[in-house]
Amino acid sequence: MPSPLEDPSAAASPYARIAAAYAPETLQTAATHMAALLAAHFRHVQGGEGPVLPWNDPEQLVLSARRLMLQGDHSDLLNDLAGATDAAAARQTQDQVACAVGQLAAAVLAHGHQLHHPHYVGHQVPASLPLAALFDFLGAVTNQGMAIYEMGPWATAVERAVLDVVGSRLGFDMQGAAGLITSGASLANLTGLLTARNRCLDGVWKRGVLAADPAAVVVVHADAHYSISRAAGILGLGTDHILTASLDARRRIDPTRLDEQLGDLRRRGVPIVAVSAAACTTPIGAFDPLEDVAAACQRHDVWLHVDAAHGGAACMSRQHRHLVRGLEQADSVVCDAHKMFFMPALCALLFYRDRSHRFLAFDQHAPYLYDPTAPELAEFDSGLLTVECTKRAAAIGLWGTWSLFGPQWFEDLVDVTFERTRDLYQLLLAADDFEAPYEPTCNILVFRHLPPLLRNLDAAAQNRFQLLLRRRVIESGEFYLVATTLDGTSLLRTTLMNPLTRPDHLTCLLDTLRRHGQELVRSLAD
Amino acid sequence: MPSPLEDPSAAASPYARIAAAYAPETLQTAATHMAALLAAHFRHVQGGEGPVLPWNDPEQLVLSARRLMLQGDHSDLLNDLAGATDAAAARQTQDQVACAVGQLAAAVLAHGHQLHHPHYVGHQVPASLPLAALFDFLGAVTNQGMAIYEMGPWATAVERAVLDVVGSRLGFDMQGAAGLITSGASLANLTGLLTARNRCLDGVWKRGVLAADPAAVVVVHADAHYSISRAAGILGLGTDHILTASLDARRRIDPTRLDEQLGDLRRRGVPIVAVSAAACTTPIGAFDPLEDVAAACQRHDVWLHVDAAHGGAACMSRQHRHLVRGLEQADSVVCDAHKMFFMPALCALLFYRDRSHRFLAFDQHAPYLYDPTAPELAEFDSGLLTVECTKRAAAIGLWGTWSLFGPQWFEDLVDVTFERTRDLYQLLLAADDFEAPYEPTCNILVFRHLPPLLRNLDAAAQNRFQLLLRRRVIESGEFYLVATTLDGTSLLRTTLMNPLTRPDHLTCLLDTLRRHGQELVRSLAD
Repeated sequence: MPSPLEDPSAAASPYARIAAAYAPETLQTAATHMAALLAAHFRHVQGGEGPVLPWNDPEQLVLSARRLMLQGDHSDLLNDLAGATDAAAARQTQDQVACAVGQLAAAVLAHGHQLHHPHYVGHQVPASLPLAALFDFLGAVTNQGMAIYEMGPWATAVERAVLDVVGSRLGFDMQGAAGLITSGASLANLTGLLTARNRCLDGVWKRGVLAADPAAVVVVHADAHYSISRAAGILGLGTDHILTASLDARRRIDPTRLDEQLGDLRRRGVPIVAVSAAACTTPIGAFDPLEDVAAACQRHDVWLHVDAAHGGAACMSRQHRHLVRGLEQADSVVCDAHKMFFMPALCALLFYRDRSHRFLAFDQHAPYLYDPTAPELAEFDSGLLTVECTKRAAAIGLWGTWSLFGPQWFEDLVDVTFERTRDLYQLLLAADDFEAPYEPTCNILVFRHLPPLLRNLDAAAQNRFQLLLRRRVIESGEFYLVATTLDGTSLLRTTLMNPLTRPDHLTCLLDTLRRHGQELVRSLAD
Repeated sequence: MPSPLEDPSAAASPYARIAAAYAPETLQTAATHMAALLAAHFRHVQGGEGPVLPWNDPEQLVLSARRLMLQGDHSDLLNDLAGATDAAAARQTQDQVACAVGQLAAAVLAHGHQLHHPHYVGHQVPASLPLAALFDFLGAVTNQGMAIYEMGPWATAVERAVLDVVGSRLGFDMQGAAGLITSGASLANLTGLLTARNRCLDGVWKRGVLAADPAAVVVVHADAHYSISRAAGILGLGTDHILTASLDARRRIDPTRLDEQLGDLRRRGVPIVAVSAAACTTPIGAFDPLEDVAAACQRHDVWLHVDAAHGGAACMSRQHRHLVRGLEQADSVVCDAHKMFFMPALCALLFYRDRSHRFLAFDQHAPYLYDPTAPELAEFDSGLLTVECTKRAAAIGLWGTWSLFGPQWFEDLVDVTFERTRDLYQLLLAADDFEAPYEPTCNILVFRHLPPLLRNLDAAAQNRFQLLLRRRVIESGEFYLVATTLDGTSLLRTTLMNPLTRPDHLTCLLDTLRRHGQELVRSLAD
């Protein structure tokens, strides 16, 4: 007699419970229910109803999430499902599962950051295209893990197609270049700089970073994203050996001074791992003059890495692609689909101009992964290129959206969000209680609110005001924006990452800041 | 008069095209259509119809994926959608979008690796629970990016709740321990070993890895996953400075010899970054004797890292949790939800036994991320703990599934897949044309097929036969399994990662191998 574990027909046996949870009908019922729930959610949020960020104490929210995991006897539902004796009973329990999934979804949606609210003008994380997430769902539900071609044939194909098409748009000759997709720009920056390190320091992979005198350095944009300096720490180069490149008045790398800096380092025999430039920077969205930066790097035979996580997408716009001119001369370039291509996180593209560098980051042998009977397949094994072994089908959203709507749609997104940022800049210039120290180049804009009473206070008080004002506004749920500090001055910072934000929303933003500003001034005076 | 760019009412303006693509009704129609498509797909695949892996030439598949991106004038669809003048026309174009999404989905599904086919017995990537992907969809569609608590409050809460509940199951006192979630076990192993490196080598983050004499070493399981030795290369330690720990006859770390090895290293003044143990190893699924390994590490004050990516889930089973006894004494532990918790990729958990180590991997300052007016929130800012800045809501699948079905369901998965592997082992033992050199401990099993004609051939021919046999079988689409080479012997390797694989499928596996084996012998004889 078979044990309950082994008999698939026994009701509520482990096998039966598992089979019930995997039933295709259960998925369909729950997914259809989720579709309706999400449509209602997006109508609400995109219509500007409710808070952008419903503020909650994190500890309380963690406790709620934990309570939902630990409450009651969940296995009832599964046993019901497994024990359903006819089609009607099965349908009823499927509806129960769909309902339970919907309740959990509703619980999280109610406490989410509503990036699709037109008052979301915050970080460089977009109000991503909801349809793109549907392609992500397709990837997740079929779990195409890659690492090797066999484990995700279409995921691999889709990834290569995206790299090819986007790489060409960025200006690369994709016959001679190569690319990979990884879990975010921080990891992509790390991978690009790892390749640069391995190229610069002979034998470093095997022997480790040795104490050269002088030590190897990385020359980075002074406003580089933190992942760049982190990379120096992770890779064993040491953050003490990061040199910053001098900036011009618009906070872009000054190529003449870079040329001098590199020349000086070369004269002193300092190994230079890489120059890390930006297209664009995080704080104010400055695009480095890449052609001149590349020329300086070439003159001194230095690897040029460009973090174009945010701004790379400018290549999609006839109006704005001049911003990334010269990008194709970099040795490695990072561009995020989950920023200005408006895809859900995470999908970061890393390109090498010279495809002979594509296997340089890692130098390894994994006999159970790579098959000596079909060595030609290794060219399609993503695990040789990326930190990840198993990966997600991260390119599927961009592939699907591009295949649906074509390149025009991505051009629209760049044009509309950049234009909207100009609108905000004009509003700020026209207001005498706001200051915007840097003209925006893209959709990132910093400014501060200085109501009359604040003009006479010292810099520290003015700085503190901006940060307290931001906190008041975001906790009110009326708008979401961020802040940064540049040369000792605290500034409010917006990235227009929701293409549905209109000019009237921006007028409302200024009014909202003024109203909260007045209340804040009063409360500080008390 | 407003420009077309600015007027949201102008048909087929950039704004209108964008708004049309974001319409909640379009999402609902497409998602409902996708739900039906996927239910049909899973009925087909789970029913064992069609190939497991439909073999395609990768270059051809890349070309097909590229063609779909570049073909035709996609913007027609979007212009239609944007230009719809009444509800009926809008519905019609929404149906068109849903249909186009469905066609793209069908194109990729047809070329996918069908992990849900009961003949999928391959890598350590599961036939993940389809319902879990629905939670992933929820995360993607709302794009809760985290890095800071503000950017994904519920994603943060869900992640913390999962860490707390799973960490407790693994045996950690979660008051004193800490955890994080990252994009895969390779990155989690890297992060854990980075923390160990920073603790071992004073000032390494800032000053870099210096050439100590003797150089710092990492002591690793001889069968460790490649990400462990890669980490030494990435972190600047050098792969030459990896020492392997001696194994016993069952390919587990021998704690007595480890103790001697560590004692010897200490006597010689060699800095020891970490011991990296396994629960379990990739090739044969061996679980190290963690209590004794931990005792040896404690005796010599060495950081113990355990890669429990696959086997950590044994903690869910009353029958099998003894395999991970002692895990709670490790300093850092990696456990993947996208392996034996049957979640879609990627969701890797990393735990530190001592929460004071949680910020040790990175040591940085990012003023635009972390708010001095609310420093207490930094405890909930994931960017301080992980390589990723923006992250996915990677924990949502596990959180949702656990909240739905409770811990019993995860116990079922471990018990059923481990039991099924015993079934396969018994079948192999009973057959005189198969050899299984290692008794399985979990759901990983290696073996080889040796038909009579092959017994007289040399080891090289026998090895080659296994690899060629595997390639024939996987390209036939009848089964998917993998291979490995241990001590010079090539072996077939299965991981029973589809809980719907039944004993009769395993009998069929042996018969299929025999049939292809006969054909292969004939073709080699020709």
